[in-house]
Order: sequence, then C-alpha cells, then structure tokens
Amino acid sequence: MELNEVIITKAIIDRYYEKLSKNIETDVAIVGGGPSGLVAGYYLAKAGKRVALYERKLSMGGGVWGGGMMFNEIVVQESAIHILDEFGVKYRKYQDNYYTSDAVETAATLTAKAVQAGVAVFNCVSIEDVMMRTDRIIGLVLNWSPVEMAGLHIDPLAVRTKFVIDATGHAVEVVRVVFAKVPGRLLTDSGKIEGEKSMWSEKAETLTLENTKEVFPGLYVTGMLPMPHLVDPGWARFLGACYFREKRWRSYY
Amino acid sequence: MELNEVIITKAIIDRYYEKLSKNIETDVAIVGGGPSGLVAGYYLAKAGKRVALYERKLSMGGGVWGGGMMFNEIVVQESAIHILDEFGVKYRKYQDNYYTSDAVETAATLTAKAVQAGVAVFNCVSIEDVMMRTDRIIGLVLNWSPVEMAGLHIDPLAVRTKFVIDATGHAVEVVRVVFAKVPGRLLTDSGKIEGEKSMWSEKAETLTLENTKEVFPGLYVTGMLPMPHLVDPGWARFLGACYFREKRWRSYY
Amino acid sequence: MELNEVIITKAIIDRYYEKLSKNIETDVAIVGGGPSGLVAGYYLAKAGKRVALYERKLSMGGGVWGGGMMFNEIVVQESAIHILDEFGVKYRKYQDNYYTSDAVETAATLTAKAVQAGVAVFNCVSIEDVMMRTDRIIGLVLNWSPVEMAGLHIDPLAVRTKFVIDATGHAVEVVRVVFAKVPGRLLTDSGKIEGEKSMWSEKAETLTLENTKEVFPGLYVTGMLPMPHLVDPGWARFLGACYFREKRWRSYY
Amino acid sequence: MELNEVIITKAIIDRYYEKLSKNIETDVAIVGGGPSGLVAGYYLAKAGKRVALYERKLSMGGGVWGGGMMFNEIVVQESAIHILDEFGVKYRKYQDNYYTSDAVETAATLTAKAVQAGVAVFNCVSIEDVMMRTDRIIGLVLNWSPVEMAGLHIDPLAVRTKFVIDATGHAVEVVRVVFAKVPGRLLTDSGKIEGEKSMWSEKAETLTLENTKEVFPGLYVTGMLPMPHLVDPGWARFLGACYFREKRWRSYY
Amino acid sequence: MELNEVIITKAIIDRYYEKLSKNIETDVAIVGGGPSGLVAGYYLAKAGKRVALYERKLSMGGGVWGGGMMFNEIVVQESAIHILDEFGVKYRKYQDNYYTSDAVETAATLTAKAVQAGVAVFNCVSIEDVMMRTDRIIGLVLNWSPVEMAGLHIDPLAVRTKFVIDATGHAVEVVRVVFAKVPGRLLTDSGKIEGEKSMWSEKAETLTLENTKEVFPGLYVTGMLPMPHLVDPGWARFLGACYFREKRWRSYY
Amino acid sequence: MELNEVIITKAIIDRYYEKLSKNIETDVAIVGGGPSGLVAGYYLAKAGKRVALYERKLSMGGGVWGGGMMFNEIVVQESAIHILDEFGVKYRKYQDNYYTSDAVETAATLTAKAVQAGVAVFNCVSIEDVMMRTDRIIGLVLNWSPVEMAGLHIDPLAVRTKFVIDATGHAVEVVRVVFAKVPGRLLTDSGKIEGEKSMWSEKAETLTLENTKEVFPGLYVTGMLPMPHLVDPGWARFLGACYFREKRWRSYY
Amino acid sequence: MELNEVIITKAIIDRYYEKLSKNIETDVAIVGGGPSGLVAGYYLAKAGKRVALYERKLSMGGGVWGGGMMFNEIVVQESAIHILDEFGVKYRKYQDNYYTSDAVETAATLTAKAVQAGVAVFNCVSIEDVMMRTDRIIGLVLNWSPVEMAGLHIDPLAVRTKFVIDATGHAVEVVRVVFAKVPGRLLTDSGKIEGEKSMWSEKAETLTLENTKEVFPGLYVTGMLPMPHLVDPGWARFLGACYFREKRWRSYY
Amino acid sequence: MELNEVIITKAIIDRYYEKLSKNIETDVAIVGGGPSGLVAGYYLAKAGKRVALYERKLSMGGGVWGGGMMFNEIVVQESAIHILDEFGVKYRKYQDNYYTSDAVETAATLTAKAVQAGVAVFNCVSIEDVMMRTDRIIGLVLNWSPVEMAGLHIDPLAVRTKFVIDATGHAVEVVRVVFAKVPGRLLTDSGKIEGEKSMWSEKAETLTLENTKEVFPGLYVTGMLPMPHLVDPGWARFLGACYFREKRWRSYY
Repeated sequence: MELNEVIITKAIIDRYYEKLSKNIETDVAIVGGGPSGLVAGYYLAKAGKRVALYERKLSMGGGVWGGGMMFNEIVVQESAIHILDEFGVKYRKYQDNYYTSDAVETAATLTAKAVQAGVAVFNCVSIEDVMMRTDRIIGLVLNWSPVEMAGLHIDPLAVRTKFVIDATGHAVEVVRVVFAKVPGRLLTDSGKIEGEKSMWSEKAETLTLENTKEVFPGLYVTGMLPMPHLVDPGWARFLGACYFREKRWRSYY
Repeated sequence: MELNEVIITKAIIDRYYEKLSKNIETDVAIVGGGPSGLVAGYYLAKAGKRVALYERKLSMGGGVWGGGMMFNEIVVQESAIHILDEFGVKYRKYQDNYYTSDAVETAATLTAKAVQAGVAVFNCVSIEDVMMRTDRIIGLVLNWSPVEMAGLHIDPLAVRTKFVIDATGHAVEVVRVVFAKVPGRLLTDSGKIEGEKSMWSEKAETLTLENTKEVFPGLYVTGMLPMPHLVDPGWARFLGACYFREKRWRSYY
Repeated sequence: MELNEVIITKAIIDRYYEKLSKNIETDVAIVGGGPSGLVAGYYLAKAGKRVALYERKLSMGGGVWGGGMMFNEIVVQESAIHILDEFGVKYRKYQDNYYTSDAVETAATLTAKAVQAGVAVFNCVSIEDVMMRTDRIIGLVLNWSPVEMAGLHIDPLAVRTKFVIDATGHAVEVVRVVFAKVPGRLLTDSGKIEGEKSMWSEKAETLTLENTKEVFPGLYVTGMLPMPHLVDPGWARFLGACYFREKRWRSYY
Repeated sequence: MELNEVIITKAIIDRYYEKLSKNIETDVAIVGGGPSGLVAGYYLAKAGKRVALYERKLSMGGGVWGGGMMFNEIVVQESAIHILDEFGVKYRKYQDNYYTSDAVETAATLTAKAVQAGVAVFNCVSIEDVMMRTDRIIGLVLNWSPVEMAGLHIDPLAVRTKFVIDATGHAVEVVRVVFAKVPGRLLTDSGKIEGEKSMWSEKAETLTLENTKEVFPGLYVTGMLPMPHLVDPGWARFLGACYFREKRWRSYY
Repeated sequence: MELNEVIITKAIIDRYYEKLSKNIETDVAIVGGGPSGLVAGYYLAKAGKRVALYERKLSMGGGVWGGGMMFNEIVVQESAIHILDEFGVKYRKYQDNYYTSDAVETAATLTAKAVQAGVAVFNCVSIEDVMMRTDRIIGLVLNWSPVEMAGLHIDPLAVRTKFVIDATGHAVEVVRVVFAKVPGRLLTDSGKIEGEKSMWSEKAETLTLENTKEVFPGLYVTGMLPMPHLVDPGWARFLGACYFREKRWRSYY
Repeated sequence: MELNEVIITKAIIDRYYEKLSKNIETDVAIVGGGPSGLVAGYYLAKAGKRVALYERKLSMGGGVWGGGMMFNEIVVQESAIHILDEFGVKYRKYQDNYYTSDAVETAATLTAKAVQAGVAVFNCVSIEDVMMRTDRIIGLVLNWSPVEMAGLHIDPLAVRTKFVIDATGHAVEVVRVVFAKVPGRLLTDSGKIEGEKSMWSEKAETLTLENTKEVFPGLYVTGMLPMPHLVDPGWARFLGACYFREKRWRSYY
Repeated sequence: MELNEVIITKAIIDRYYEKLSKNIETDVAIVGGGPSGLVAGYYLAKAGKRVALYERKLSMGGGVWGGGMMFNEIVVQESAIHILDEFGVKYRKYQDNYYTSDAVETAATLTAKAVQAGVAVFNCVSIEDVMMRTDRIIGLVLNWSPVEMAGLHIDPLAVRTKFVIDATGHAVEVVRVVFAKVPGRLLTDSGKIEGEKSMWSEKAETLTLENTKEVFPGLYVTGMLPMPHLVDPGWARFLGACYFREKRWRSYY
Repeated sequence: MELNEVIITKAIIDRYYEKLSKNIETDVAIVGGGPSGLVAGYYLAKAGKRVALYERKLSMGGGVWGGGMMFNEIVVQESAIHILDEFGVKYRKYQDNYYTSDAVETAATLTAKAVQAGVAVFNCVSIEDVMMRTDRIIGLVLNWSPVEMAGLHIDPLAVRTKFVIDATGHAVEVVRVVFAKVPGRLLTDSGKIEGEKSMWSEKAETLTLENTKEVFPGLYVTGMLPMPHLVDPGWARFLGACYFREKRWRSYY
C-alpha cells in the first residue's frame, strides 16, 4: 500500500504539538530522566497527576545503563525489591539482602513504565531558569539542549507547574538556580546547598529519607542532596523515589 | 540494615564476568542496539538462540528516542502494528494505515523486552574488526567505545559467533569492514555496497524485504542497505526485523 | 497590566505550528537564505506562489553582512540597480556602472522584504536529503541544524514541494545530494557538477544567465554553478536572481 | 559591459574607510546589535545624533531570529505595538493584549530601519575595553571579533564618544568592564551589578523602566540589568528601548 | 599448532577477573604510578603487604620518562643511590654527589620491579571519590579513566583498604577530595593543604622527610605536599619513598 | 649537603647532548617503541650493534600496557616463552600452549632490558621523512612529536643509519613514506603495501615469519604487514621479533 | 604632553588605507612570508618593482625561527653566504663549506630588510583564489586569515598583479589552486604538480635551480616544487631565491 | 659540492648546546619577546651584560606585528623617536608629536637588533616557575612551550640569573607566580598586583615611568603593571623600556 511522507510528517507534528500544548501547565514538572525521576513520575502519574518530565539528553535512564564501571549490572537491597516488582524488572539474589538486575533492562523498563503510566517525556530539553513568585517556584524556563550544545543565542519558553522535582542527582541543577536567586533561604538546615559528605552505604537509607524533601516552596529533591559521591550502584535511588512517594509526598501534596 | 560496598562491588563484577564469559561464543552476534537490532534479537532469543548484542553508545534505542526532528513521536503503518502488539507498545490511530506511538516509550520498551527475552546486551562496546575463515565471518573483534573515544592504543578482544547481524543502519559498519577485506565479493548484485538511492516510502516495504538478506556468508543486514537516507520515522525498521524473522531467517538458520 | 507566560508560550507554539503545518506542501522550496534565495523567494511569493525557505543558520543574509573582508559595503552594477530599487535599498554611485550600498542594510532589507512578500522562512534547519520519484525531485528531508551541530542521532522529517531552488551558492548542497543518487544525469553539459573555473567579472553576467537553470527535473540553481570562487561582492547574486525571474522561471513554471 | 575587480575592491575599501573615519568620534556608541540596541539607535539617529553601533557577530538581530526555542515567532504586548508600527513590522492579534510577529521579519526590519535612519553599523567588532577620564566613560576600545575568536595577539583601536549604551542584554559586557575598574561605584542601589532575580512577566514593564538608566557617568543600559533570565520572547526589549527614548533619554541628553 | 581466539579471550578475562576480585580489599591502595608510588609499592609488597596501585594513564612512570625538557636523563644525589642499586638501575657519576641515569630505563625498571615484587597495578583507572567512616579513610571509589575522558555518565565502583597513599605528586588528588569533605581537619600545621612555596634544592631532602606523612587518619602523602614546583629531576621522589619506608611507615603500620 | 640546580641542569643537558651526538650515525634505527621494536632492539644491541630507537610517545611499550580491552593481562604461546625467559618476565600457564603474563610488567620489562642492553631511546620524537639514495634508505628525518602535536612550523633534523626497522605495527609509518616516493617498488609480491586480510590466529605464526622481511633496500618491517587487525594479544609480536632475529637478520646483516 | 587616542586611531587607519589602496595593483604579488618570499621580495623591490607580500600568519619568517627541532640555529653553505652578507646577517664558520647563523636573527633580519627595501607586507591575509584570464594568472583573491580561522562566511576582495610568486614552500598553495582550474596544463614535465621525491642534500642546489621556474603563465614558484621533505635547514631556500633572481627572473621580467 | 646531512645536524646541535650551556647562568633573564623585552635586552646586552630572553611563541615581536586591528602600522610619539633612531626603524611624521612606522618592519628590526647586540634568545620556551631564596628571586624554571601545549607531563629545567625582567605585558606572568608564593609582599603600594585602571594616553608616559620598577627583590616589570588595557599602539612600550634604561636600571644594577 502507498505511504505518504506528508502524512507521516503531519502525524508527527500534530501529535507532538498536542503533547506540548497539553503540558504548558502541569501538576508536577520533573527535571531529570534518571531512575529517581522516572520512579517518582511513575507513581505520581499513576495517582492521577499530570506529570511532565524534562531530560537534557536524547535517551532516558541516566547513569543506570552503565552499571558500575561499564559492568552493566546493578545491585538492589531487599527493602527496594518491591519497586522492581512493581515495574516488572527481573532480578537475581546475590546473597542475603543483595540482589542484582541487568542495568540495561532496568534503565529501559523504568522508562517504558513511566511513560505508560502517563508521564509526558520531553527529551533533548534543558532547564535555563525557573519562574518564581514571591518565594514560590511556579514554573520552568526551557530550551532545546542541542541549542545549548551548539552555543546558539535563542530565547527559551516558559511552562507553569504546581510542583517541581529536581531529580538531577548530585548536580541539583534546579536547586542551584533557585539558590542563586535567594541565597541562604533554602529549607535546609544551613539555608544553603549542603556540602559534600562522603558516607558509607549503611547510612544511605536513612539519609535518603531525610533528604528527599521540600527544599524551597514548590521545589523537591529526590534524596540526593547531601550525598554527592555516594557509592550508589542504583539502589539508593529507588529508595529515594520510593519513600518519597510513601512518606513525604503524601503529606505535602 | 548494614550495607557493604565490597559486596556491592563483588556482586557487580561477578555478574558481569558471568555474562561476559557466557557470551564469548554465541549463536548470533548483533551489532547495533537500534530498533532493528532489538527486534531481531528479541525474536531470535525467544526462539532459543544465544544472542549477544553490541552497542557503541551507553544507551540503547538508536534514533528512535528523538522521533522526527526532536518531535518525539513515531509513525507506524498497519502491517507493522502486530510488532507493537507483540512488544506491548501503546499506539493511536492517526488515519487509515497510519498509527503513532510515543518515541520514548517505544525505544525503551523494545530494549526492555529484548533483554527480558534473553538478549545479552553489551553497551559501550564498539566493533574494531571481524574474524574470518576462508570466506566466512566467524566472529567479532571488540573494544570499549570509550577507549576508542579517548584515542587510546589498547588491544581488542575477540568473540566467536555463528551468525552476525549488521544492524547499524545506513552506516553498515560491519559490512564495510568485510568489504574492505574482500572487495567485490559481497552477495549483492554488484558485489559492492550498493549506492545511495533516495526512494519514496511506498516502495520501502518491498525494498526492506529485498534487502534484509545475507550479504556475505554468515553476515546479514537488516533491510537498510540500499536506502541510506530513506524518510523512515521508525516503521521501516520494524518491518525489516519482522520479515527478517518470518521469511529469511527461517530458511538460513 | 498582567502578562502571562503561559499565554506567551502558547502563542508562539500555536503560530509556529500553523506556519509549519501550512508548509508541509509548497509550490517552491528554497534552500539557502542568502541574497539569491531571498530575491528569488520575494519574486515568487509576490507572484502568488507558496514559498518556503530553509536556512541552516540562525540569521539570514548569507555572506552579504560582511561586505568584502569585513569592510561592510557591497558593489552593485547598473543593470542590477532596479532590484535595489524594488526592495528599497539605498545606494550611492561610485563611478559609472558601479554603485555601493551598506552591506548590513542590504542583508536586512532583502530578508525583511522577502518575508513581507509571503516567504515562510524556517531558520536553524538543514537539508539532510531529498525526496525523489522516477527522475524528479519532489521534496526535501529536513532536520534542525543544531541537532546536526550537536552530532545527535535524530531522524529528519520530509516536506513536499513542486520545485526546489538550490540557493546555497558555491556549495550547491542540494545538487550534490541529487548528483550522488543519479551520477552523470544532471542537465549540465557534462551531466556532472561542473568544475571550478576562475573567471573574470566581465563575463560573470553572461555566465550567471547561462547557469541559472534547471539542473535536474524540479531542481534549479541560482546562477552559481560554474563559478565557485568568483570575486563577487554581492552584485552577481542579484543578477542571478533577477534574470532567474525574468528569463527562465517564466518558461518553466 | 566590462567589470573591473580593481574598481570593485577600491569602491569597497573607499566606502568603508569613509564610514570608519567618520565614526572615530560620535555622539553615541551602542554596543550590541540586538533589538534594544537597534531600536535605541534608530530613535537617536532619527533625532539627528551621530550613532555608531558595534556588534560582535557577523549578523544583527541578536536572539530575535530564533523566537522561542527555534519556533520563530515572537510575542509583543499592546503597549509596545506602536514600535512595530513605527518600524513597519507586521503583526497579528493572538488575544487581548498579546500580538505575534514573525521573528525573522522582525529581526531583519529592525536592522534595516536602524541603518536607514543613519546608524553606522560595525559588525564583527568586539569591545576589549573602555576609555575613561576621571569618573566618566569617554570611548571604547575595539577589535575585530575574528581576531578574538582566533586567539591572536593583536592590539585594538580606540574611538571616542559622548555616551555609551550597553545593549548587550544580560551579559552587560560594558558595565562589567567598567565595574572591574571602579568596583562599588556604579549608579545602582548597591553600587554593584545587581544580582539575578527571576521575575514574573507582569512586573517586567515596570522594571524595564526602572532599569533603563545611567549606571555610570556616560554609560547607559537598556532595561536589562536586574532581569538576567526573564522569560522575554522579545517584547520586553522593545519596551526597554521605547521608554528609554521617551522618558529617560530626553532628560539626560 | 592451532591457536584459538576464544581461549585467548577467556584467558585474559579470567586472569583479570582474578586480579580484580583479589584486590577489592587490600592492605594499601596507592594512587599514582609515578616514581614515589612505585617505590613505596615495591617496599610494601616486599614486606608482605597486599598492595594495589591505581594509575589514571595507560602507562606507568609518571614524569620520569621525559627527564628534563625532553632531554631524557635524570639526576640522582648520592644519598638516594642505594635505591637505584636496590632496583638495579644503571647510573654514571657526573661529579661529586651528582649521578645520572637514563630516564627511560629508570621509569621502566621501577615499574617492572614493583609488579614483580607483588604490586597489583590497575592502569586506566581514576579515583572519583573516597570512602570514609567517622574520620578515617577506608576505601577508594574508582572508575575507568577513558569513561572520564569521554565524558560519559557511568557510576563507579568501590574498593576497601586499610591505608591509602596519595602519590599523585603536586596534584595531591586524594588529599583534595578528603579536604573538600572535612575542611580544616587535615593533620598539617594549618589543617589545610599547604600553599605553594618555591624552595631551593638543598632544603628538599629535609622537607621531603618532613612532608612524607599521614595527613588524615589512614591517608599518607609521599613527600610532595609543600613543594609544588620544586626543580626535581627525579631524585627527590626517591628520597621521599625511601625515608617513607625507613622512618615513618615503620611506626604507623 | 647542598644541591645546586645549575649542576642538575648542566648534567642533564650534557648527558643528553652526548647521547644525541653519538647517535647521529647508527647501525640500526628502529621506529616504534612497542614490543617488536624493543625485542628487536634488545637482540641487535646485545649483538654489538649501535641501535637508536625513536618513539613518538612519552612512554614506551606501545599497546601492551592495556592487555585486551583494558584487562591488563596478555597471552603468550609456548613457542615464544623463551623470549619471556630471556627478558625475565614472569608468566603462568593457562592451559596447554597458552600462558599469561601481567601486561604492565611485560611492557616495563621489555623497555628496561632493551635500554640496559644498549639501545639508545629517543622518546617524544616522530619521523617526518626518510633520507634516500638511489633506491636505498639511508637515514631518517626527525622532529619532536610535541612540535607536531602543537601544529608548529619548525624544521626537522636528519640522522644517518645503515638499516631502518619499521616497528610501528599496522601503521607501517616508515613504509608508507617510502611507498609514497617509489610507488610500486616495494619488495612485496605486489610491490605495494599489502591490503588488509583478517586472519585467524593459527596462521599467524607462519605469516609472522613470512612478513618479517626487507621491504625496501635498507628497510625492514617486523612481521606485521599483512595482518592489520589480527587478534594479537601480544604474543605474535614477540614471535615476529624472535624469528626476525634468528632466521632473517642473520642472512642480511 | 597630551596624547590623543583619536589621532592615534586616525593615523593608523590612514596609513593602512594608503598602503592598501596603493597595492590593489602591483608588479609582483608574493604569497608566503618565509625566507624565499622575503629574499625574492627584497631583490625585486630593490630593482624598483612594486611588490606586495601576503602572509597568512601574524608574524613573518616562516619555519626559520625554530632552526632544526627548536634548536634555533641554521646552517648555510658557502655559495649562499653572499646573501647573508647582503642582508647583514651574522654567521660563524662551522667547518669548510658549512656556516651557522642564529635562527631568530636570520628570520628577523630578512623581514626587516625586505620591508625597508620597499616590500609592502600584508600579514594575517590568506589567499582564497586567483584571478585568471585566458591562460594567464592576473591577480589574487584575498581574505583576512582570522576570518578563515573563525569559519565565518565573509566574501574576499581581489587585487591585480603582473606576476605571482608562490613562496609557500612544500604547500605550493597558489599552484594547487591554479592546477584545480586547469588540470594537466602546468608548465612542468608532467603538466601536474610533481610528486614527492626524497633527495639528498648535495643534489639540492641543482634542483633548486631547476625548480625555481614559471609553472603557469604569470606564476612562479621558488625552488621547492619537487622537494617536499628535503632536509633543508634554511640554506636551500636562500639559494632558491638567489638563483631565482640571477638566472630566471632576468629573462622573464 | 657535496653536502652532508650529518654535518648539518651536528652543526645545529653543537651550536645550540653551546648557546644553551652558556646561558644556564646569566646576568639578566628577560621573560617575553615583545617590544619592551627586546628593547630592554638590547640596551643591557649593549652595556655588556649577559642577557637571555625567553619567549613562549615561535616568533618574536609580540603584539606589534598586527598594528591596531590588523592595520599593520604603529604610532610613536616624539619623545620615543630616539629609540627608533637607535634601532634604525624608518618612520614618517603624521602630525606634530605623532609619527608612524610599519608594524612589520618595527617588530622585525627590534628583534634583529636585540640578537645582534648579544641577547641570547630562546623561543618556544615557557616559564613554569621561579627559583627563590629567602625573599629574592634567583632563577627561572623552564620548559618547552610545545610540551605545555601538548599537555604532556614532562619535568622542567632550572636556570640561574641575577635579575629577572617580566616583560610579558598585561599578563605579568612572572609577577603572578611570585605573588602566589609571597602574597602581600610585592613592592607595590598595596603589596599586591595592582588592579586594572583604564587610563588615558596623556598620563601614560608618567605612569610608565612610575611603573617600570622593581616589584620584588631581583624582579622588574617593564612599565605595564597598572595599565592592563591601555590603548597603546606600540609607543608606550618603547618609552617603558627607554626610561627603564635611563632612569632606573642605572641605579639598581
């Protein structure tokens, strides 16, 4: 049967225009398409929220694809296994409390399930700035990341949202932008972005809970703030997203 | 409960060593983790073959993630819909014979399902050379792609396989290596890599069938050879893999 | 009065979507936003044709902005002065037959007037390929140029058109793509892209007329083909476009 | 008729030499060829001042060409529409108070009209330093921007002027140079370059008025100082230039 | 006799896996494969300790290979000659107290003898972070250096060790990471990384002794801390390692 | 005791000047400091010849350091074990006919022993050209490789030699220079550089013997010519050098 | 006494404009500011010709500055000593027939004397093309080299001349441009650019004479054509220029 | 007569070795081969001092070659004309107190005359560090600049000198190194490197005198310290060097 390139082009443009228009105003805007962003997005979309997720790169999954040092396996502890079950990621027991899963399968499955749950993903998009009202974040200022990579001078566009989740991991990109505007007023103990503390893994669970929190009115981070260089082969991030959903999100949202 | 970094490191190394060792000899080695490589791998693994897939990049999914011009939707024609059904990718009808699906969901789902079907994926790996016997390809010569990117002089390693599928798309990377060794002896009409022919979409289906074939003893390409710049927003590649399975593979393998 | 970013974003997206959708099928597609492309587009749009113009760079005007060696003035000969008059570009007489105009004003005015005449300009867009039917060009395959600059693997989109004008100057980018597909079949004397011939200016006028022609069914070039390194401080290009309109276009279109 | 390259070369050199020599001393030197620089230059030249405008890039128009995220349309609010009317830029109403215009047409028209009004534009020129007398800026120190891009060690040249307008937008390039020389003595509230404050659009108009001011004796900025990342799809800049002309310039100049 | 690539690949993978697994927990981890790291490793391995050495580059030997200004000879003073004797490096007397040896031979011999003494060398590996417990360094966080060079986002792996020696010379890479986590608490006089002090050679011996010390519980540096730009054509480093062994290590370990 | 930088500088300059002056005329000049160059140099120096070895990089050892894919072990077959014994490299049996050694130890030991045997190594030196007489190579034209890397225009220097060994492996850098001067006159079967032939390992031994030969009067290659992408984890190169010495060199030299 | 920047700027612009205008038509245009270009220019200017010299780099002197391998001395043979005498370069006898001079002094003196003799030097200028009439070169097409380095699209300017000397050495840049336009019609034996022939120095004198000749009507090269990689530490180039003047120029000019 | 490459190579190496050895200890070491370094070197060498000059680039002359904005002329005021007379640079009067000279001739003549006066120039050499004794600079630590450009890890060499002149202009490279070692102890008013002060030209003469001084025991700067961006088209630098000689040097040296 005859195929028509014009229809193909029209179809792609129409569908994208529809997706883009529908997400100029959302309930939650997630920045970063790594595991914590995907897991958070999945649960929020499943709960009926309108969720848009912005990822700078072309592909999703963040650092999970490479496992540890390109050995593409990841380790998950017992308490986070229920998340793998929820997403349908296969795993094998290594020894008590330690399970492994294939890094490639995990990255892909988290992504696939988040979209299927309703998360609208915008890849190749970077965050240039945030929109604020008197002491509350109310939106994001976006641009194509290839524009940024090519060093072109092209203005961004703005989208509104009720809540922003900074899921960019150690980079805390959104938090840094906010902090530059209101130095000293973050909702952390010091009011600042907390410094690097090299921790041991057994404390990570507790810390992940402590640090998955609202750091500025309307802005959340997913459990990564004070652990910039934690040895985390994947598992801590699930935890972050998991407790995020169970303990904290419930109370705020 | 206490977590031990040494166990995490051991677990990752052990699992990867196991996966790597098991795949030094395979039934099929697929080069390229885009849609045609993933779909081909999926059906072959499902049929009980031992399949290893090598992808140069960190992430899988090839060019699907970006849809057309970063408008992240893809178009699939009716005759390929059964593949989306097989993988569980959601789609919407645009008009008769034209369906759209989310590009991000599609890329991720193809990847996830291929691994779950049994394909062993080695990402961050590039192909430096092939191993040949008298006129038959019998293996691949691998290296880490970051080694290549960093321009370091480090020797590769070799793996054996019964069949190689070149799923690198228009680049036909493996075919080029073989052609450089045995100029004029490819199993194409001219014996050479066939030139660029800008085609229209309605002929693509037929051509995809014609060109998903064995181009050298032991070496297959997935329907892309004579269509280097076809306007293919994803669908042609499914077809390639699909017919590949149904019509050709059956007879050769 | 209150301004709303969401409305601003919506307005921009809606208007662009409208412009993009309307130009998936056009009468003429011009590649290259330098002077010959702009002048050709202006006259064609003024004649009621639907014209889309694709420019790889962010800004229009090509090499005119810099005059000669960054001395931002250009020289126009008497026979092309009527084009400056048509566009409203100011000029001064230098000596008999030689006039000068400000390079910046000229580049900007040609651009402004072309758009006002109805040319739909798509900047930051590069041509990846052409669509062909049996020996006729029927469309272009586009991508964002920042995607190309960033080296990302993202598929293009296709647009249809009745005629293509290659106004990329010495690069003859579209002609090269076509030539790679049908070597030896260009409508030039040799059937090939004609080689470099360093000419003197007094012959340029005649040559510009000779070479503004149809080089393949559906594909025109604007008077630049055999003069890759002509000393042309702007004036030859006007001529090209001018005669293009008067003598040739009339007969073909 | 015979054309002579030597005459063409002579004509270009003579005209540029004339333009350059005439502008070694000016009334106003504008740095930056974006919309606010062009609009300011237009009104000043129209008022009979000798105005030179220096732009680092080859082309003029700044960030306007790309609209928002390469969607090449811009939005203008009602109160700035009279500027579009003054320049002859076409626009369409989107909804009450919001109008759109083609980004390419707008960039080109502002440029063309500024030059026609008498602004002498020097493109490919960057500002290396300023000339100062006891607490007053009295000139600029220029170089070719390609020299800067090529990293060559070549000395600059100096030009004198009565007033300097820093129209480089968020970069405030001239202000930074001055501030480095006289830290703490800018005519802002703090005496420093004021920090980043993410604002909402409805306050922008007021702020643009507040911040289009003299920040050091002889040095003006065009309404951009405290709004480095404002979501401004073009309109704010017109306002800046507009009120600049109406309210402030009048009193100082 | 027939050779089998699969056996070759298996042999390499098996031996490396064995070496890697055995060194996830060590007595001493040395960072930096220059002369001081190699000499320290040699003596420690000879004393029966399990020693792993991590080097960012592909080759070992650090700055020794190039002698001074690519004149590939080095100078050693009398008091360090016994180290050359221990390793079997040939030398010639230049004048009283000054001996020279071939730079290439020296670099290679130090490396060869260190491995033969039992040091497990991991080249192409960089240190991303350290593992700490309450005020004691207990391990290193590693990644492939080509991953770092290629700018890929891939997680590291962790290894445990009783003691870490920072032998990265003036860079003191490990010390910097620790200092960023516990500012002000290094075991130096100031509690900080001590600043640059350009010294003369005759004081270097004493200083090398003074500065080869424990700078944080579990972390040693090899005599380089306060001498960032000393004119040291190799000899000072031997001294550092030498006295390190004789005077200090004995008391701590 | 007091140390004097001036004496250190003098010592290094004097020793290097002496080494350089002594090697302006040599018996053999080896290009490439990888295993085959080092082994060939070792045996020739041991036999009393004056040997200079030029290596482009700062360090010696070529591709051996990285083993296979950064797994730093190499495999040696039984027939080459006597070379490891000669140099004193430790090895372990993997299975019949296959032995492994540490890649780092091997690279370092080959280098150290070659210098101790009398090879004068000039690292950071690249070959720009060769000196020829009527159909015989009689010298090399050298430059600092950092000069080449920095793209500076600096003339080279020439050295004379009786024989040149091209030990640059697959690159055959010297052979290519000679071939460009006397196309078709190499002493190979075709008179040309022989093309790429992907071989299997069991044929490598024979081929290494066949191809370690004189390819032009005065110019030898070390067994690599027709095997550009052989899977050679080190052992083939030893063989090359070994038989080189035993069978061929004897007859020519 | 008061200094005025405006006068300084005016003075520089006026003088340069004067120099540039005067050289739009010349007797001889030399391309390349290395020793052969400078020497040729010196003698021609001294003979009363109007000579312009174009050099791509900022500084003159070409490869002389670095001597051999950055050892900044050059060697001159007896028969060329009279040129050093003519320019006033100091030299010392090394042994019979071999003299040395300081490379820095030589490069600078050749440059200084050429300008003093009347050569108009335009540095930072590259040659984009040539102007030709029926089989005769009649001019050059110039651009700023920083424009080329910065990759900007800016048109060139043309200058006329009676004769062109290609003194770009092995690159023969002008000859290549001409050859691309009239393949096979150079005045060499083959009609082509002659291939690389590695020669010995004692034949260089003869060859330099042979090859300093007219290779196309109006176009000369300075004795370098067939000796692309000659070991020439400076002296051959003087010879070239010298005999150029004495034997050939006389007959043609 | 026969020429021998070996003699040529030997001659260059011998002469350079002699020059290098003789300058390991000097009276004055000048850093930077621009006009002030050359002029200072000239007068000092003429006065019988042993002077070495180190220049990072291949060519000498610094920023003089390019005149102002590549318009290669420079302006000299009356009071500095005697320096041009001393060196034999030709100049023309522009108007009272303002003279112009050719930039290329000036750069080359200053260089030629400095070497002829006895300055030993080492080009392609950069300064890595300084040697100090208790509060006095006593030498420099050198490396090849291509080594630095190529990013290689190669140790430097040290040379001794009685006095160092930092003639690197605005960069004050040596002063910065010293300041980093002894913060706050420079012999300036503040004890620090004095900040940027944009001055007018008529004050430059006085300032040049004030600032050509000893800034640390043994370390001088040539009149540039407080004028980093002065509009100095060459003349100020002569002055600096001139008065340097006449007023200050006499008293210190």
